[in-house]
Amino acid sequence: MRAEILCVGTELLIGQTVNTNATFLAQGLAALGIDCYWMSTVGDNFARLQEAIATAWGRADLVLMTGGLGPTADDITVEAIARFLGEPLEERAEARAHVEALFAARKRVLVPSNYKQALFPPTAGVIPNPTGTAMGCHVARDGKQIMAFPGVPFELKQMWREWAEPRLAKAGGGMIRSVLLKYTGIGEAMLAEQVAGYLERSNPTVAPYAANGEVHLRVTAKAGSPEECDRLLAPVVAELSALAPHYYGRDEQTLPSVVGDRLLARGQSVGLAESCTGGLLASRLTDIPGASRYVRGGVVCYDTALKVAMLGVPEAMIEAEGVVSRAVAERLATGAREALVADWGVGVTGWASGGPGVPEADAGLVWVAVAGPDGDVEAREARYGARTPREMVKYFATQAALDLLRQRLGGSASA
Amino acid sequence: MRAEILCVGTELLIGQTVNTNATFLAQGLAALGIDCYWMSTVGDNFARLQEAIATAWGRADLVLMTGGLGPTADDITVEAIARFLGEPLEERAEARAHVEALFAARKRVLVPSNYKQALFPPTAGVIPNPTGTAMGCHVARDGKQIMAFPGVPFELKQMWREWAEPRLAKAGGGMIRSVLLKYTGIGEAMLAEQVAGYLERSNPTVAPYAANGEVHLRVTAKAGSPEECDRLLAPVVAELSALAPHYYGRDEQTLPSVVGDRLLARGQSVGLAESCTGGLLASRLTDIPGASRYVRGGVVCYDTALKVAMLGVPEAMIEAEGVVSRAVAERLATGAREALVADWGVGVTGWASGGPGVPEADAGLVWVAVAGPDGDVEAREARYGARTPREMVKYFATQAALDLLRQRLGGSASA
Repeated sequence: MRAEILCVGTELLIGQTVNTNATFLAQGLAALGIDCYWMSTVGDNFARLQEAIATAWGRADLVLMTGGLGPTADDITVEAIARFLGEPLEERAEARAHVEALFAARKRVLVPSNYKQALFPPTAGVIPNPTGTAMGCHVARDGKQIMAFPGVPFELKQMWREWAEPRLAKAGGGMIRSVLLKYTGIGEAMLAEQVAGYLERSNPTVAPYAANGEVHLRVTAKAGSPEECDRLLAPVVAELSALAPHYYGRDEQTLPSVVGDRLLARGQSVGLAESCTGGLLASRLTDIPGASRYVRGGVVCYDTALKVAMLGVPEAMIEAEGVVSRAVAERLATGAREALVADWGVGVTGWASGGPGVPEADAGLVWVAVAGPDGDVEAREARYGARTPREMVKYFATQAALDLLRQRLGGSASA
Repeated sequence: MRAEILCVGTELLIGQTVNTNATFLAQGLAALGIDCYWMSTVGDNFARLQEAIATAWGRADLVLMTGGLGPTADDITVEAIARFLGEPLEERAEARAHVEALFAARKRVLVPSNYKQALFPPTAGVIPNPTGTAMGCHVARDGKQIMAFPGVPFELKQMWREWAEPRLAKAGGGMIRSVLLKYTGIGEAMLAEQVAGYLERSNPTVAPYAANGEVHLRVTAKAGSPEECDRLLAPVVAELSALAPHYYGRDEQTLPSVVGDRLLARGQSVGLAESCTGGLLASRLTDIPGASRYVRGGVVCYDTALKVAMLGVPEAMIEAEGVVSRAVAERLATGAREALVADWGVGVTGWASGGPGVPEADAGLVWVAVAGPDGDVEAREARYGARTPREMVKYFATQAALDLLRQRLGGSASA
């Protein structure tokens, strides 16, 4: 099966939006073992969209479209598909009901143009959108398919995973299976050097990717059945997962989910005291469903006075050591345990970016500390440099804090 | 002049790389007032690249290519251009000298394949690469042009700015300027309906885009000079910026930056009490450089006991009203002002996703509240639905809280 990705939206052609949707779909196709030979982008222009659909249909068996499913006049994807099929647009009752139900649930007022999203060509299928009003459009004829998804990334992702992926996986013959192994506290080049022998293999292949504050290895096997794939993958995955202390999890696991699982297994809780990360650490931990079972809460002690008043950092310590120091990070970790009545406490203090009052050499300097159930504290220093953007320093600092907590929690459920 | 962007590289088709080069070139074309009607991506495959070049040449006057200029066997862009021109590849003396000089300067050893980068079709021009060995290839005939750049983003950008942009600016007549206007608390369809008259205009054009928890209008003018563009833009921008209370800012402004600017102008501070957003609100506010001048800090009161102990929510209130309620949100806002010693307090409580203990109808329900300097509190309810992903509910809730705070802060610097 040959696929083409066709993205619709003038915002892409004027460079207002980076086309991450195309990348997401390309990854999805690759994971299913479906070859993608073309990607195309056109604007909200009927004639050119017509031409693009016809071209894609002529050279591919599966056309994945994104964008142009909104309620406004420049959203023309479904109309273009209808024209391509030589069909009119008709209101689909269940689609109209979906739009109305969504608006009712959110207590928002429908305007007439919202009903446009209930129009489909008669022979097309409706791809359900669990979150938004822009349902997808599915065409299947002559052994070929078009699947049109909305351009809103999280809606596209949800619809791909829940609707498209299972259908395509079932249809495919020879298959690809891959495992994503995740590492932290090590650079891409260094990890690649450590696993150099694996990078030359052909089945399974091993490919390194730099991710946000971590490095991933994708191990991919091709075979005739899932079992055969798994048999090829197992020994390589086992060896590559043994790279301590950097390996932390695989596939959907994230540092916050791994930390959460270990806290749950121990029946313990965590409290956070964040200065430079400004709440991002708490936010990442609470992205995980069920986090309320082990996250007690946090204090964003941005103001120095709050570090003193709410977390018990002695003013004299701040004066003597500086607010970004091992001593303050350690005291924040201990203070978080105490103030938030948690088993584990995490403290973070640093300079997320340069500015008035920040020592030149220290922009991007962060101290993270973890206080354990028996009160012992461990701290680590990290330097991300003055040129690293503020949001990245914040994110990297949460990675460092989560990784220290993960290592202290250990791999097993026992204390 | 009509342009097409043609990107070459299998890494794009398997989703290994996000195509930021296409976005960069699209922005560059838009800034020059050159219409880009198509973007295409093909892999490192000779036949398909041939076809893509011929198609682009047929429908565009300017074909901008990226990628495939490296020294290895899968780098085939220049060869494909030569075949398209019906010409052989010949070594270009100055190109060979450039490759040799670069290797000598870096004290690295040349291998024979490096000389591949000195091969060009005889009628093509060489686009200098100040940084790397991959020089670009320039074709001009029949009033049309191909410009092929390397795929390394830094090199592409440098060559675009130093070589291509000045040439195209000189050749082109008119130019484009655009302003991005930002709205919150209103859906895309509703906003489009309110500004329907503007969406039909041709100069400036007005186009709506749904963004993450907000809606944008891009106003774009075409004219012969920057001043003429600005004269066309000014009245439309003025009218569209008057859409209270939804309009909040333009271009690089964000809700957190606008709130920050207003707090700074008033010389006031804010403190946060977050339950379901788990620190994301504090994190977004502290993404803005200089946020320490007005963000005192926050309490992530995930655990109910912390709402009582740290923010003074009466246990009886939680029992009577429920933890997700107007009363608790209001009390959290007041408690944040008090506990964090701030002028303004923000409270957020909600169910970020369904789960044990969450009433079926209330998954995705959020209450936000803002307490002002004189103690008066205002609250709003928002419903995002049970199927909206947890992270999105969190993000939308921070939008709602920031927007309420923005509206209460008002547009002027006076209290």
